[in-house]
Amino acid sequence: MHFSGVFPILATPFDHDEGLDLDSFRRSIEFMIEIGVDGITVLGILGEANRLVDRERNALITAAVETSSGRIPVIAGSTHHGTRATVELCREAAACGASAVMITPSREPTPSDDQIVEYVSMVAEVTALPLILQDHPASTQVHMSVPLISRIIESVPNVVCLKEEAPPVPPRISALLPTLRKNQVTLLTALGGLYGAFELERGSDGFMTGFAFPEVLLAMTKAAREGDMNRVYAIYTRFLPLIVFEQQPGLAIRKEIYRLRACFRGNRVRHPGATIDPPAAKQLAGVLERVLPGVDITRPIPV
Amino acid sequence: MHFSGVFPILATPFDHDEGLDLDSFRRSIEFMIEIGVDGITVLGILGEANRLVDRERNALITAAVETSSGRIPVIAGSTHHGTRATVELCREAAACGASAVMITPSREPTPSDDQIVEYVSMVAEVTALPLILQDHPASTQVHMSVPLISRIIESVPNVVCLKEEAPPVPPRISALLPTLRKNQVTLLTALGGLYGAFELERGSDGFMTGFAFPEVLLAMTKAAREGDMNRVYAIYTRFLPLIVFEQQPGLAIRKEIYRLRACFRGNRVRHPGATIDPPAAKQLAGVLERVLPGVDITRPIPV
Amino acid sequence: MHFSGVFPILATPFDHDEGLDLDSFRRSIEFMIEIGVDGITVLGILGEANRLVDRERNALITAAVETSSGRIPVIAGSTHHGTRATVELCREAAACGASAVMITPSREPTPSDDQIVEYVSMVAEVTALPLILQDHPASTQVHMSVPLISRIIESVPNVVCLKEEAPPVPPRISALLPTLRKNQVTLLTALGGLYGAFELERGSDGFMTGFAFPEVLLAMTKAAREGDMNRVYAIYTRFLPLIVFEQQPGLAIRKEIYRLRACFRGNRVRHPGATIDPPAAKQLAGVLERVLPGVDITRPIPV
Amino acid sequence: MHFSGVFPILATPFDHDEGLDLDSFRRSIEFMIEIGVDGITVLGILGEANRLVDRERNALITAAVETSSGRIPVIAGSTHHGTRATVELCREAAACGASAVMITPSREPTPSDDQIVEYVSMVAEVTALPLILQDHPASTQVHMSVPLISRIIESVPNVVCLKEEAPPVPPRISALLPTLRKNQVTLLTALGGLYGAFELERGSDGFMTGFAFPEVLLAMTKAAREGDMNRVYAIYTRFLPLIVFEQQPGLAIRKEIYRLRACFRGNRVRHPGATIDPPAAKQLAGVLERVLPGVDITRPIPV
Repeated sequence: MHFSGVFPILATPFDHDEGLDLDSFRRSIEFMIEIGVDGITVLGILGEANRLVDRERNALITAAVETSSGRIPVIAGSTHHGTRATVELCREAAACGASAVMITPSREPTPSDDQIVEYVSMVAEVTALPLILQDHPASTQVHMSVPLISRIIESVPNVVCLKEEAPPVPPRISALLPTLRKNQVTLLTALGGLYGAFELERGSDGFMTGFAFPEVLLAMTKAAREGDMNRVYAIYTRFLPLIVFEQQPGLAIRKEIYRLRACFRGNRVRHPGATIDPPAAKQLAGVLERVLPGVDITRPIPV
Repeated sequence: MHFSGVFPILATPFDHDEGLDLDSFRRSIEFMIEIGVDGITVLGILGEANRLVDRERNALITAAVETSSGRIPVIAGSTHHGTRATVELCREAAACGASAVMITPSREPTPSDDQIVEYVSMVAEVTALPLILQDHPASTQVHMSVPLISRIIESVPNVVCLKEEAPPVPPRISALLPTLRKNQVTLLTALGGLYGAFELERGSDGFMTGFAFPEVLLAMTKAAREGDMNRVYAIYTRFLPLIVFEQQPGLAIRKEIYRLRACFRGNRVRHPGATIDPPAAKQLAGVLERVLPGVDITRPIPV
Repeated sequence: MHFSGVFPILATPFDHDEGLDLDSFRRSIEFMIEIGVDGITVLGILGEANRLVDRERNALITAAVETSSGRIPVIAGSTHHGTRATVELCREAAACGASAVMITPSREPTPSDDQIVEYVSMVAEVTALPLILQDHPASTQVHMSVPLISRIIESVPNVVCLKEEAPPVPPRISALLPTLRKNQVTLLTALGGLYGAFELERGSDGFMTGFAFPEVLLAMTKAAREGDMNRVYAIYTRFLPLIVFEQQPGLAIRKEIYRLRACFRGNRVRHPGATIDPPAAKQLAGVLERVLPGVDITRPIPV
Repeated sequence: MHFSGVFPILATPFDHDEGLDLDSFRRSIEFMIEIGVDGITVLGILGEANRLVDRERNALITAAVETSSGRIPVIAGSTHHGTRATVELCREAAACGASAVMITPSREPTPSDDQIVEYVSMVAEVTALPLILQDHPASTQVHMSVPLISRIIESVPNVVCLKEEAPPVPPRISALLPTLRKNQVTLLTALGGLYGAFELERGSDGFMTGFAFPEVLLAMTKAAREGDMNRVYAIYTRFLPLIVFEQQPGLAIRKEIYRLRACFRGNRVRHPGATIDPPAAKQLAGVLERVLPGVDITRPIPV
């Protein structure tokens, strides 16, 4: 398993009652496989993992593993407050058949660098699965320095991939790559693809993010691998208004796109998160029409 | 059920491996009953609820309900990110036999006043149990104004008690009491009893906090009910060095006291929380000897 | 004075020693006037206002007023912790000849809605100048709800403009516009122009932001006024890679562009802010070459 | 100059209009000298330094220097966002005659350990005055680890004193003392004296805090120096209700005590800080009467 390429963070579909809609979930996974992604990540922040109870977590991992049935790896976000609870979630993820787990340190209690290294090491010790380390201070309120991340990479061999999303990301990529390469650790970026071209230019290995048109990120990643930065920028520029619009805070827009792409039956976000309102849906429709005029988005789009 | 008096927030005992130590947990509940508390709260922040998986939550609620077996009410902290997940935890708590649930809003996404009212209302709608509303910005990062809390009290009849711990607490008590009294809602305070005398003087109905000597809070509450503020202050002054020492950030001290009181076999705090180190244990022993010279603290202490 | 159109937030140029470089500052103002902006704002966050002492503040306002010499209005960011100090800064700004002041509430002590209204009212009472109210939680850590902003607009007539930059901004524009229009208050947006097309589509009146090519924002605003959203989107899409790249956290990129545009002699950011490093400067040069191939950016660019 | 003993952080008195009341300020300094403090600190957080403009800062330092006229050292809080502005404030403080300056790093931009060391080093380089390093995450939102503080102490010789107030403080004292002693750096604690006995027991050198009865802290420090921990605890226990009451968030109580002690004419806190209300004033009066029955607090109190 090599964590380079495009690994969408899946949204979690809910019915009108905010219960899990596993049919929609499975449909979105089939669609991702059809699109040709390199793997999928469930239970990220964008999957509203923080608004799910454990039973729901397991149902989603299980559904993802069954649906993908070995065609692509399934990564399970498994962060919890405290090391032991993270370990428990990693075990559950493994028991449900996940291929890898993604973890990130928590702000409580205010962690020292040593405690963060311990956290990752202790989870790694009891988890047979490969680890993806997530660096997303916007959600964790934990700011990891480049030396700290390097130290983790050097000392915890299970960490096979860094999900780097602490802006400004491009200089961090340049600062981290030597250590990552030396340790055969890949670097994926996120933030909805907002800085995608700049990140690929710096040497990132692809994306693990929730942008609802992974076709775009796949094409950019492929062009970058072929050294064709002109094509990377051309694709990026063409889709950037949609990328920018889609990565606005909240999940309403993304879930509406999943609905428009015929993956999800509904677009419900769990309260107190906001579901899309008609003016925003109309504005989104306008953006889609401008960026993808006449394209059937219920099918993989040509890029 | 009337939520006035003293309701200790129980710590969660772990073995050397950080697994649940239910024997110690049950012993601490028997001890609380012997001490004469009015109820117990499990799965508060001080119970390291944020470091437990759901299965462990249920095991603790069940153990508490079985051990207390109707002698005192068991309140279960049931806060989760998002309204639906909170509802799920409340349902589980009810299924495990809890007498009431305690909830508090979350900071993500940044909630408006309206969303906080909705959060409490929606939980109340599907929960038959009485609700305790917790106001603890230090852990939630949510600052509720006095008008907002009053609005919740007025509009959600299930809320039977306010756990007020947004310092400075005394002026908030005076500002909130008229609305609370009008709606037959009690007010308990917390923060380890740090401001206990000042809060009782303002008219609070008792405590829901983790101070490991609830005998002291019971005696203060009793004296306040009898209008004997001199006695309240005398008890408060006598025990204040211990109260101050014990409420320092972290749980290490409190868990060591539970061990010294022969409730808990060990004093382990879940990583990355810190377990007490020898110098701190020595300093605690010194404080205990100064405040309770020669007293057997494995028995309810005389106040 | 009507606050619609484009009002760049000026960067503050420093010499190698981090002292004020007023020559560069004046040059950037002349350039802005040549570009045709509707006004300028000094001492915003992007002007590193928080890293300046009062003497430097006054020097900058004075230089801006002298340089613009009535050709365009000069708005002075005048926020301070506490109401009285904000009043003092507003007075100083007025004494230095500013045309208007921009203020925003502070997080300390955690303000209630009432206190925020008081803050704006009290400043307005003693300030003859028009007030711009800034809503930028990313820097203030204060989250103002739509009802709160509406309440301020209704109750403080001096507020003539809202600088709205609490994402997601588009729905807030729709929610706020009726109250703003009724009270003849304009709405400008910011965040480096990141969501510019979507904001204009919702009815915003222009921009008050630091994007170093205000020509682009001017052209978009003009097209929006003419009802030509196709042109707005065409301009937006063309420049979006540059807009996205430029609005990354930190000021290094923006100051380098000011240098490349021959406004600033240097690109120094005050420590501990980071000045641009060679790889980032190279990446910026690449983006500029892609978006503005062969264009002399030391002159106003054609859009 | 040796920074051990008791150095009160002075409050800043305002008149009804929130203007500086320098008469009251001078009176409070004379009173402190009469009490026998080892020095005074102006422009701390408790001095509402963040709500003052630079002109007011200088007026206060000058008044403090003139009033103390060499009898005791005057330390000036000189923290600003950004290194250069901090340097400017330190220069101004020196020009006004301050004996030492106190600084602390800022949260913006999120500082790495290296940047914090740079910040202190760069300030030290251009400041002839001794430096006090403040560690108060509650106000700065910057969490410095023990290794980081040790590194600063080792590498910046100008730092002569650490003001340690990151709770839990006692274990940090034990962890830091070897490095501090080796470098002849003293350690003072704060937080209103809340943990005073426990801190002295761990080897702290005294207090730099705003508790309005420094007589108490002087007596405790003296007893600790004489190795009489019984006396330390006896004093601490006697005054603890007052210490606890006084250190509640906000400055209202402290300023009312300064008024009651006949230092300040009024008790005004700058808006949006809250001035004491009648119920709180009454409660304070009650606490004072319980702790200091019949004592004339307008004179130095016997401890």
